[in-house]
Amino acid sequence: MQESKLHEHIYARSAGLTAGPGWSVVVGPGDDCAVMKSAGGDLLLLTVDQLVEGRHFTAGTDLDLIAHKAVARSVSDIAAMGGTPAWATATGVLPKNYPNADELFDAMARWANHWRCPLVGGDIASHASADHPLTLTVTVGGSVPAGHRPVLRSGARPGDQLWLTGPVGNAFASGRHLTFEPRLEQGRLASRDTSGVTAMIDLSDGLGRDADRVARASGVVIEIDASAIPLSPGTPDWRTGASEGEDHELLIVAANRPDIPGLLGPIGTVTAATDAAPGAFIREAQSRHPARDLGWDH
Amino acid sequence: MQESKLHEHIYARSAGLTAGPGWSVVVGPGDDCAVMKSAGGDLLLLTVDQLVEGRHFTAGTDLDLIAHKAVARSVSDIAAMGGTPAWATATGVLPKNYPNADELFDAMARWANHWRCPLVGGDIASHASADHPLTLTVTVGGSVPAGHRPVLRSGARPGDQLWLTGPVGNAFASGRHLTFEPRLEQGRLASRDTSGVTAMIDLSDGLGRDADRVARASGVVIEIDASAIPLSPGTPDWRTGASEGEDHELLIVAANRPDIPGLLGPIGTVTAATDAAPGAFIREAQSRHPARDLGWDH
Repeated sequence: MQESKLHEHIYARSAGLTAGPGWSVVVGPGDDCAVMKSAGGDLLLLTVDQLVEGRHFTAGTDLDLIAHKAVARSVSDIAAMGGTPAWATATGVLPKNYPNADELFDAMARWANHWRCPLVGGDIASHASADHPLTLTVTVGGSVPAGHRPVLRSGARPGDQLWLTGPVGNAFASGRHLTFEPRLEQGRLASRDTSGVTAMIDLSDGLGRDADRVARASGVVIEIDASAIPLSPGTPDWRTGASEGEDHELLIVAANRPDIPGLLGPIGTVTAATDAAPGAFIREAQSRHPARDLGWDH
Repeated sequence: MQESKLHEHIYARSAGLTAGPGWSVVVGPGDDCAVMKSAGGDLLLLTVDQLVEGRHFTAGTDLDLIAHKAVARSVSDIAAMGGTPAWATATGVLPKNYPNADELFDAMARWANHWRCPLVGGDIASHASADHPLTLTVTVGGSVPAGHRPVLRSGARPGDQLWLTGPVGNAFASGRHLTFEPRLEQGRLASRDTSGVTAMIDLSDGLGRDADRVARASGVVIEIDASAIPLSPGTPDWRTGASEGEDHELLIVAANRPDIPGLLGPIGTVTAATDAAPGAFIREAQSRHPARDLGWDH
């Protein structure tokens, strides 16, 4: 079963969750972060991501880059809600007799401090074999500044338009998937109560697939103009740029251009899902490609 | 390097952590849970544990038991602080083409709901090979009821005595490591402001090693009477019982027997570390065994 199908199964099962005493589930599984409310009324953003050798990085990758990516992926999810990182935990399952654990966890701690979400807990275990892959799991908790609210995937409305915080494509070959800077500042500007932003998502699985997630969560149709997609250097065409994934730019939805420096677009529009099921499409001349078929599971 | 040495390295590096805006680190790495304080003053207990096929369970173990253990290990850490579970996240790295992911995550969700810490987020990734081991990571957040405070490892004082919530030993062979019930109620009674309990720890790595952790965190000497250690059926001797691990009973330290039903003991005493370095020992007739040499890393 595809990982995306598994995730949908989890989201469906998680409806109507009852948290422990004093806590409530504001946003459950299915967005960039879960949102919990504590007894005192504080909102807590929560996200967790895994990094697996052979899937998300190749053997021999520089340890500092592995550590950067492990932490940055989760920080980027906080950015996609418009939040501020607050703390983190990191766990690792290491190949047997792995010699670089200290260096790796020191590097993760440095990156966590860099984004001001220090590692306050963790766990290390070892595989039974030296041939088993290194895997890292990073959880980040975050908060939402006063005067801001979490921006969900589900708020896009007919008449809205779409913007990006940067170009897409070629993240792997260029090495950018290891060095990207989470768009915390842009996310925070988008989450201001007065920003007009209706929906936002972190592009991890490709513009096509992630735009489709916004469309379905919002119950709308999104149409992206292929010729308007900004492509990173080395990206051969829009199809590659919209499908490779790991861009970690923000896709931002709003009725009018938000006051966020450096936005690219508009790249597309939102319409009502009256005659069709919700979903995202990429229009190229007279063709209209389902965006969900682009992108990848990882 | 041993996992316990790695953990000590992490704890040392994590002193003086600065959390994100509004948050503060009350207890950093090195206890059963981290304790964070949010802007509104709420305390958040945080713990994360990993479960690795071939280390913490054998291939072919019933999925519901794997799920139970994955969630219960973290819930037991919340119990060891005297807290109440509130929410959880679960991640898994699955062997390639793993057929039982739905069933496994459904079972984890059921157990999380059982302890009232619903799964509000997660992530699933696949290994590049079907031969790579299944690994699960469960994070649990918890709260501390009004009139209670988190019980740390570091509060044991000379003159205190030690109790257990149940016997130790034979957790693996008996299968109890897969079915244990976290001692939430006993932990909550221990964390009442009026309980008199000074320190507490969840026994995951064996009574010997975990008692030594309490002694070092508290800067005291702990001496356990070998003949007073309550042994589970099938445990051949005190040395086995104190070293095997995975008991997930609570070791509770207090000047007088706390008002907690079913406590076993006292099994030992706390003295000042005047002539010796802090640490725990097990006394058997005229012999005194360093407790740190018992127990295991996992």
